[in-house]
Amino acid sequence: MESGRTEMRMVDVIAKKRDGMSLSDEEIRFFVNGITDGSIPDYQASALLMSVFFRDMDERERATLTLAMVDSGDRIDLSGIEGVLVDKHSTGGVGDTTTLILGPLVAACGVPVAKMSGRGLGHTGGTLDKLESIEGFHIELTEEEFKEQVNRLKLAVIGQSGNLTPADKKLYALRDVTATVDSIPLIASSIMSKKIAAGADAIVLDVKTGEGAFMKTEEDSRRLAEAMVGIGRSVGRRTLAVISDMSQPLGFAVGNSLEVKEAIATLKGEGPEDLTRLCVELGSRMVVAGGKADSLEEGARMIHEVLGDGSALGLFRSFIEAQGGDPEVVDHPDRLPSANEVIQVDAKRDGYIQSIGADDIGLAAMHLGAGRATKDEAIDLGVGIVLKKKVGDPVRKGEPLAEVHSNGRGTDTAISMIREHITIGEEPVTPPALIRGDIR
Amino acid sequence: MESGRTEMRMVDVIAKKRDGMSLSDEEIRFFVNGITDGSIPDYQASALLMSVFFRDMDERERATLTLAMVDSGDRIDLSGIEGVLVDKHSTGGVGDTTTLILGPLVAACGVPVAKMSGRGLGHTGGTLDKLESIEGFHIELTEEEFKEQVNRLKLAVIGQSGNLTPADKKLYALRDVTATVDSIPLIASSIMSKKIAAGADAIVLDVKTGEGAFMKTEEDSRRLAEAMVGIGRSVGRRTLAVISDMSQPLGFAVGNSLEVKEAIATLKGEGPEDLTRLCVELGSRMVVAGGKADSLEEGARMIHEVLGDGSALGLFRSFIEAQGGDPEVVDHPDRLPSANEVIQVDAKRDGYIQSIGADDIGLAAMHLGAGRATKDEAIDLGVGIVLKKKVGDPVRKGEPLAEVHSNGRGTDTAISMIREHITIGEEPVTPPALIRGDIR
Repeated sequence: MESGRTEMRMVDVIAKKRDGMSLSDEEIRFFVNGITDGSIPDYQASALLMSVFFRDMDERERATLTLAMVDSGDRIDLSGIEGVLVDKHSTGGVGDTTTLILGPLVAACGVPVAKMSGRGLGHTGGTLDKLESIEGFHIELTEEEFKEQVNRLKLAVIGQSGNLTPADKKLYALRDVTATVDSIPLIASSIMSKKIAAGADAIVLDVKTGEGAFMKTEEDSRRLAEAMVGIGRSVGRRTLAVISDMSQPLGFAVGNSLEVKEAIATLKGEGPEDLTRLCVELGSRMVVAGGKADSLEEGARMIHEVLGDGSALGLFRSFIEAQGGDPEVVDHPDRLPSANEVIQVDAKRDGYIQSIGADDIGLAAMHLGAGRATKDEAIDLGVGIVLKKKVGDPVRKGEPLAEVHSNGRGTDTAISMIREHITIGEEPVTPPALIRGDIR
Repeated sequence: MESGRTEMRMVDVIAKKRDGMSLSDEEIRFFVNGITDGSIPDYQASALLMSVFFRDMDERERATLTLAMVDSGDRIDLSGIEGVLVDKHSTGGVGDTTTLILGPLVAACGVPVAKMSGRGLGHTGGTLDKLESIEGFHIELTEEEFKEQVNRLKLAVIGQSGNLTPADKKLYALRDVTATVDSIPLIASSIMSKKIAAGADAIVLDVKTGEGAFMKTEEDSRRLAEAMVGIGRSVGRRTLAVISDMSQPLGFAVGNSLEVKEAIATLKGEGPEDLTRLCVELGSRMVVAGGKADSLEEGARMIHEVLGDGSALGLFRSFIEAQGGDPEVVDHPDRLPSANEVIQVDAKRDGYIQSIGADDIGLAAMHLGAGRATKDEAIDLGVGIVLKKKVGDPVRKGEPLAEVHSNGRGTDTAISMIREHITIGEEPVTPPALIRGDIR
C-alpha cells in the first residue's frame, strides 16, 4: 500500500483546482499530455475545464498550459528569417480588414511578416479567401520560397499546415459542447499557444469589445488582454494589446473583395477613419515589438510615413505579384470580383444613427453568401455590405444607410436585417471611442 | 433555421446551471434520461455535475432529480404490506450497530420493517454480513415470504435485488472520478432516490458528523440533513433527521459478530449508553413517521417500553428463527463466531481520553479482516475491536483501552493503530455531545 512515489491521479488534479488551488506545472503537463495521447478521458477533462471556469488560473498556470499545448504538436520552424517575427491576432469582429493592411504597413517599416492564415468560419471568409479574390493569387509556397520571400519583401502569406497544438484542438472541441468556452485562462492560452506554435517571437493583440465581439464588456476584454499579455511575459514573447470597439462594424465594408478594396483604399490614405486609426495603433505596436522603433510615438510616425509616401502600397503590389496575383488591382480595384446588383438601403426618417448592430450586419452579409458556417461551404467573394453611415452620423430621410452587393441570394433578408439593426433616433449620439485600452 | 419548437441541447442545460440558474423539471429529466439511455455523453454529464457542485440546486430541482433517478429503474413493490413503511438510513460511520437494534425495536412498536440490505464496502461488513454471523440465518426469501413475514412479525430482511436507480449508479461512478462526490444536492438526491425506489413511505435519517463521518463538519452535516428532509417534503415522503456524533466510534464494538453481540446486549437494556441513546432517538422518530405515535416523547416512551419489557428482544428472537437462524444466540451470544485470540491494549500513562480516531479504529478493524475493500473479498466475521474507554473517560496506566479480537491477521498493525489513535492527556475532557441536531 505504501510506495515511494505516488502516481498522479486526474481526480486529484480536478479536486485541487475545484478547491481553488494552483496546479503545479507537472499537473498541468500531466493533463495536457493525457488529453493529447487520450489517456485522460473526456469526462475528467471537462470536469477540470469547468473547475477552471469557476476558479481561474494564475499567470504561471496559464503560461504552463500555453506551453504544454504548444509542445503537444509541431512548431513551425521559421529560423532563417531575419528579424523579430511579430504576429498579430484579433479576437474577431465584423468588417475587420486590418490584417490585409497591417502586413504591407509593417513590412514597409522593415518588420518581417511571415503570415500563416486560415480560411475560418464567420461572416466573411478569412484572410486567405480575401487574398484569393485577387486573380491568380496563390498561397502554395514551399517553405524555402516562403522564407526567401519574407527575407526579400518582408511579407509572405501561406496556408496553415502541420499538426499545430492538437491538445488545444481537442480541448476546444470539448469546451464547445460543455459550456466552458467563456473562460479567460482557457481562451487566452488557446490563442497564445497557436501564435507561439506558429513561430511568433512577439505578438500584438487586438481584443475587440462590444456587441459584435466575443467579449461583450470592456471589463472582460481587459481581463482577456491582460491574461494574454501576462502569458506573453511569462513565456518570453513580448506581447502588446489594444482593446478596440466592436459595437459597430469596423470601417464600411463587410465582404471579401469589398474588404480588399477597402484595404487598398486605406493603403492609399483614403480609407475609413476608424480602420486607418486602428491600423496605426496596431502597426506602431508591431513596429515596436519588432524592434524597429523604441516608442509607440516613433512607431506611429513610421507607419504614417509608409502610408504617406506610397511605400506600403508599393510593397502590397510587389507582394501580390510575388504570389502570382494581378498587381493591377491596386490601381484598378474594379478588377476584383463584384456582385451583379447593388441595392441602396435608404433611411426612413431624419435623425442620428443610434446603433449599428455589428453581429447582425455580419449575419446579413452571411445571408448574401459572404461567409461560411461550415468548413465545406463555398463563399461568394463579390457580395457583401458597404455601410454609408457610422454611429453618431446625422442622416436625412432617403439618404443611403448602406449598399447591399448581391448575387441574388438572401437579398431581402439582408435588406430587412440592415434596416432593423441600423437604428435612427432624434437624439444626437456621441460615437463610441475606437480605442478602449492599451495593455502591455 | 426557425422551427416552432427548439430541441433541448445539453450544452445549454450546462450553461444555465453554470450561470447559477435553476433548471426546469424538463431539463433535469432530459439529463437523467440521457444518462440512463446513454444519449448524453459522460463529458457533458461531468460538466453539469461540476456546475452543480459550484452552483447548488434548489429544493424543487433536488426533488425532481431524485424522482427522475427513481424513475430511471425498477421500484420495489411492497404493496400488500400493512402500515406505513419507514426506512432508516445512516450516512455511515464506525461501529454503527443501530440497524440491527432498531429493526426489532420499532417492529415491536407495530411499525413494519421491510429491510433490503446490502453487503457494502467498509470497515466491517454490512447488515447482511452481520446477520449471517448467526448460524443458519439466510436472506433468501421469495417476495411472498418476505411480505408475509413483515405482516406477521413486522420485521424481515432480504438482500437487494432489481435494477434500482441505474441513473444514480452511473452518476455515482462518474462523480467518483471527477471530484464531484462532495456536493450536497447530489449526495442528498442519491440517498433519497435509493430509499424511495426501495419502497419507503417515510424515511428517518441518521446524518453522522465528525472525523469518522463522510461529513466532517456539523455545518455540512446540517446542510445535508436539511437537503434530504427538503426532498422528502417535496416528494411526499415524511422525512426526519438526526445529526449524531461520529468523532469517536459509536458504542464499543467494531466488527461483525462483535456488533451483533453488542446489539443483543442493547436489546436487553445492557448496551453502551451512546448506542442506546441513539437507538431511542432514531426509534422514536421511526415510530412517529410510521404513525404509531404522535410525538417524539410518546415514541421514546414506546421504545423504552419495548426495551424494558423484553418484547423487542423476543421479536428479535422470532425474527432470527423465521429466517432460519439459531435463536439461542440471543441467550448465548458466545455461540456467535469468535476470534482465536483476544489481546488487551493497555494505557501507557495516566490521564483522560482526549480522542479516539473513529476512521483509524475502523481501519484497524479492517486490517484484522473485519471489512472488505473490494466487492469480492471475504470477511472474517469473528474479528474486530472492543473499546474499553470513550472520550472523556479517566484512565490509569496499565488499564485496558481496547481489546483486539484477532485470527492472526494484521494484529500488530491494529494494535499500533489503536495505540496511536486513542490519545491520552492530562487535561479532563468533556465528552462530545451525541445528538447534534434534529431536522424535520
